[in-house]
Formats: sequence, C-alpha cells, structure tokens
Amino acid sequence: MDRRSFLTTSAVGGTAAAAACGLAAPAYAQGKRTLTLVTTWGRGLAGVHDAAQRCADTITAMTDGQLTVDLRAAGELVGAFEVFDAVTAGHADMYHGADFYFVSQHPGYQYFTGVPFGMTAQELANWYYHDEGHALHDELGQIFGLKTFLAGNTGAQAGGWFAKEINTPEDFQGLKFRMPGMGGQALGKMGASVQNLPGAEVYRALASGAIDGAEWIGPWADEKAGFFEITKIYYTAGFHEPGAGLSLATNRDVFDELPPAHRKVIEIAAGETHQWNLAQFLMNNGAALQRLQANGVKVLNFPDVVWDAMGAAAKATLDEYMDDDLFVRIRTSMERSMRASSDWIDASEGQYRRQRDRILG
Amino acid sequence: MDRRSFLTTSAVGGTAAAAACGLAAPAYAQGKRTLTLVTTWGRGLAGVHDAAQRCADTITAMTDGQLTVDLRAAGELVGAFEVFDAVTAGHADMYHGADFYFVSQHPGYQYFTGVPFGMTAQELANWYYHDEGHALHDELGQIFGLKTFLAGNTGAQAGGWFAKEINTPEDFQGLKFRMPGMGGQALGKMGASVQNLPGAEVYRALASGAIDGAEWIGPWADEKAGFFEITKIYYTAGFHEPGAGLSLATNRDVFDELPPAHRKVIEIAAGETHQWNLAQFLMNNGAALQRLQANGVKVLNFPDVVWDAMGAAAKATLDEYMDDDLFVRIRTSMERSMRASSDWIDASEGQYRRQRDRILG
Repeated sequence: MDRRSFLTTSAVGGTAAAAACGLAAPAYAQGKRTLTLVTTWGRGLAGVHDAAQRCADTITAMTDGQLTVDLRAAGELVGAFEVFDAVTAGHADMYHGADFYFVSQHPGYQYFTGVPFGMTAQELANWYYHDEGHALHDELGQIFGLKTFLAGNTGAQAGGWFAKEINTPEDFQGLKFRMPGMGGQALGKMGASVQNLPGAEVYRALASGAIDGAEWIGPWADEKAGFFEITKIYYTAGFHEPGAGLSLATNRDVFDELPPAHRKVIEIAAGETHQWNLAQFLMNNGAALQRLQANGVKVLNFPDVVWDAMGAAAKATLDEYMDDDLFVRIRTSMERSMRASSDWIDASEGQYRRQRDRILG
Repeated sequence: MDRRSFLTTSAVGGTAAAAACGLAAPAYAQGKRTLTLVTTWGRGLAGVHDAAQRCADTITAMTDGQLTVDLRAAGELVGAFEVFDAVTAGHADMYHGADFYFVSQHPGYQYFTGVPFGMTAQELANWYYHDEGHALHDELGQIFGLKTFLAGNTGAQAGGWFAKEINTPEDFQGLKFRMPGMGGQALGKMGASVQNLPGAEVYRALASGAIDGAEWIGPWADEKAGFFEITKIYYTAGFHEPGAGLSLATNRDVFDELPPAHRKVIEIAAGETHQWNLAQFLMNNGAALQRLQANGVKVLNFPDVVWDAMGAAAKATLDEYMDDDLFVRIRTSMERSMRASSDWIDASEGQYRRQRDRILG
C-alpha cells in the first residue's frame, strides 16, 4: 500500500480546508446523532474500504440508528491524507485509515500499522488487547485529541512482483522498485532506487520496464491489478508490512461526550472489524493465490542472504527514530511482547502446522 | 480440555431437570429484558469463563442494560453439560461452551471447536466469517432451535506432559494418557490407554504414576495446574485441538423475537470476543511459557514418525462419522477452505516468521 495511490483512486478535488468548510457540526435530529466518518480509501478499494464500511454499518445497526455513521470515502469530503487533520480539528468526527500514513505527526504511528520485521496480525492483536499495545496507541491519540482503536488488518503483505529472480542482496543495487514507507526506506539502504508510484500507475510502469518490480498488497488485490499478465515471478513473503493494522479514530471530545453505551459500541465494532477484515483478506488471498498459480505464476521466496540484508536495513531504518521517547517506549514494548507471543505460537501452532501440512501434503 | 473436569470445578448440584424448574421465563422489567446465559465453565476457569463473561458484559454495556445478560456458571443453574438441553428446551436463553461437548447431539459439532489435524484459530476464522463456516454452523443450530456464533478460542492446545520422552509411535502402546474427545479416540487407535480424568484429579494421578502423561490446555492453564512440579517434559505442539473455538448459542425463538439491533449486538459481541479471547490465551501462554522454561521445563516436539501415526489415527477417527450427510458436507467444506487458507498463510506470514525469527534469534 502507499499514500499516493489512494489519492488517484478517490478523485480528490479540493483541499482539506475547502472541504472542511463544507462540513456541518455533528448532527442531532430526532434524538439521533450522526457521526461523519472520513476515510483514506476510495470506494473501489476492496478490503480496506470494506473495513471502514463495516465499522460504520455495525455501529449504526447496533444502535438502531441512534448513532448513525455517515461514511465519506477519500475525496468525498476531504482528501485521503487530510483525514487526520480533519478529525483532530473537529471538522469530521472519525477517520478510518492506516496510521502509518501519519508518521509525520508522530513516528510511533508506524507501529499501529506495522514496521519492517515487526509483528504479524495475531501478535499485534495479542499486544493490543492483552499487553500494552492499546494503552500506547491511546497515549499517542491523546497528543492529538483522538480516541483510536484497531479496526482492520490486511495480514502479511506480499514481497512483490519482479522482472527477474532475486538471488543476492546485490540484485537490489539500482533496481527500480516500488515500495512506500519505512520498508521502502530500508530497500533504499540496500541500494534500490525506490519509487513511490501511485497504484494506478504501477501496472503501466511495470509493463513498460520503467520499474523492475513492485509490491502492492497480496494476491487478492494484486490479481485485480493484473500484474501476473506482465511477469510470473511473485515473491509471496515480504519484510515490510507483516500484518498491517487499520485504525478507527474518533475526535476525543466527540467520543467523551457520547453515552457509555455508544462508546462501547464503537470499541467493540472496531475490534470485531479487525478480525472480520483480517479473515476477509486471508480467505480471499488464499483463493486468489490458487488462481494465480493456475495462471502460471511462480511463487518464490527470497534466499536467506537477502532476508539477512533486509533485516539489517530494517533495523537501521528504525534506529533513525530513536530520539523520541514515546517511539522508544512503543518499540521496546512491541519487541518484548512480540518475543513472548512468537515463542509460544511457534512452539505450538507453528510446529503443528509444519507437521500437518507435511502430512496432508 | 474435557467435559468431566468442568463438572468437578463447578460444584454441580442437581440435575438439569431440577435446575431447569427453578428458571424463570425470560424476564422483562422497565422495558428491559434479561437473558439468562448458562455456561459449561466454572467461574475459576480463566480464559474460557472470561470469554463467556465478556460476551455477557459487552452485550449488557452496548445496550445500556436494555438487554442484560445474566451469567450463571456451570452448576449455578444447570450442570456444565446440561446447557445444550436447557437452551434448546427454552429453560435458559443462551449457553456459552465448546460445541464439541455436544457431539452426541450431532458429530458435526466437533468442527466448531476443532478436529484432530484440523484448522488453526485463524483458518477457522477465515472459514467462519468469509467462507461457508458460519452458514454450516447455523444449519446445525437450526436442527436444534439455536442461533450460534463463535465466541472465543483457546488457540492451539499443547501436546502435554509426559513422564518420559516419546521417540516412536510404539511409545504410546499401553501408555496411560489423559486426553478427551476425538483426539483421545485417535490416541486409543495408537495403543494408548486413554483416560478421561476430571481436571481436578489429573495432578494427583500424574504425581502418583497412575497415569504416564496428560494434556490439559496450554502453558497459562498448565502452569496453574502445577504439572511442571512433577515432570519437566513438555510437548508444546499437539494434534488434537489445533484452535479450539468456543460458542455462544441463543435459543432461536428468543433470538428471532429480539429487535434487529439487539440481534446485531449479540453477533458482534460474540465475534469480538472470539478475537479478544484468542489474544488473551496466546499472550498469557507466551508469558507462562517463558516462566516454565525458567523453571527448567524442557520444550520438546514429537518426531515425524510420531506425527505420521497421529495423522493416520486422526483420519481413521473422522472416517467413522462419514455416514451422516451434514457431517460429510462440513468436513468437505472445512478441508477445502483449510487448504486455501493454509497455502497463502504459509507462503506469506509463514515464510516471513521463519526468516524473522531466524534473524532476530
């Protein structure tokens, strides 16, 4: 995923300021309240938009419309990356998006989508719901006047599509590759010429040879984008977004003045959507991978030496943000929790899956 | 887990009939409705009882008490394994439990907790929320007048505690081992003398040598049970309950007459609890495993030849139920879905975790 691609799919018209002027104050009518939810997703973006829509529909349905959530996709009220400012300023009530789009507000936001060599979706849920994750997310939110809950997850994103196989870290030298965010920063340290093309331009750039490869999301979205028509070389595992969380953030003043039942409705709707959306991505990716393979796509994995280089580059990237105390606390907490989660999951489910998949074929 | 152990921890007094006579009809007062939730868990059973309590509290909180769920733990109104009959007969409104306790009602119920060599918790969620899983669960429920949703998950249960290491399938010959359900049936086919001891008796039986080994749940619960004081040999991966789902079932007549908003509240509260409870087990298991290892517990894995024998025994066990059409449809659907889920998860997150854990150590 990246920031700019969503802009192109959502027909962003005016600026945040102009759009915000058109926003009404939170609406009350007939004892009902309408909350405006702005998102970082165009309506055509399956999965991520679906998560936002599910939050809206679930909140509305559970309150019988006493709390009606009115979803405005990217560009319909404010642009995709103007949602953070719109909600903190009170021009909209809620946003749904991937919080790593807002690292310029605070680098700690990266952790609530995911960092290179960070948590899987399940490890993120463990940390979030039964360790310090949500409290740290809340501490970040307090800085900006937001009440935030995880509300979606794409699962592990694919390593991407390549014109030729990757056998050594040196193969990234000068490779023109599309990857946004801290993952892209890390690839840059490996010598890649990192491109941050909008999604709509990736297919053409790959087809023309303007770029040598691209990561997008996973088989479900990648199949829709048609990359398999250009190359059959697909690396399914990547280091950059191992379990990308999505967030539902409410203006804190708006949230605090809601009755307790409605605050609980927002919390639970968001939590349920996190699981529902993760399952949606994984189930659809599973079916799409089978179709891609039937279309001749070759599933490959980077060799160990390449992963080693990615690991070093990811660490060097994260180390650049260690001058911020809250970033340090979030990173330390996440890494401690990840180890406890990971050790048990590997020793139980991990061993089980290896044996089951070996035996069942 | 097993059926009988919960009986001993919940002080079951009378019979279902006697207890059911004490139940009032669904209560209405001041425009509010109270639903009675009976469970298969004693209040002391962390994790599983917590899931039931969270469902109850969440439903009550989200409706501001308009729908108040009154939880009665095992033995407080009806015995642990009388909850199914109590709810189908309308003597109680809802139950929370593990549906494989009710295989005598229909063998298909095994699949909504989990079968040997079946789905992990995530694969179960994928199938349930975005494939045929919930529709099949609902079809089962219709037979008995229930509306059922998944509402908790223990994650993969541990292989168990042994007096001596297991090196070949023959080591199970005559081994006195505690394991309930279809997993126990499969171990029996391998020559084990399967015991179905109540939980409260397992520690003493293991300490006295009356049994040679026992599976319980996972590090969090196993640590509380104190098995590490008797033996340090712990197999963390098991074949028998790879992602045990818990269910919240409502009497269908009661459910159907609720207003749509309250039906949605029950559905979403259950779904959110599934994720919350799985994260609770995994996070607590992770921390407990670290403590157990600090106490000298040796984490082992069964060798491939043992897993091979378990796989054959599990298949033979499931094959015995293939005379039921709905069981066949559930099994076929589950196995197809599991393959699609598993292939993608292994190719993306699985490869990622192997590399990350290798590099981070």
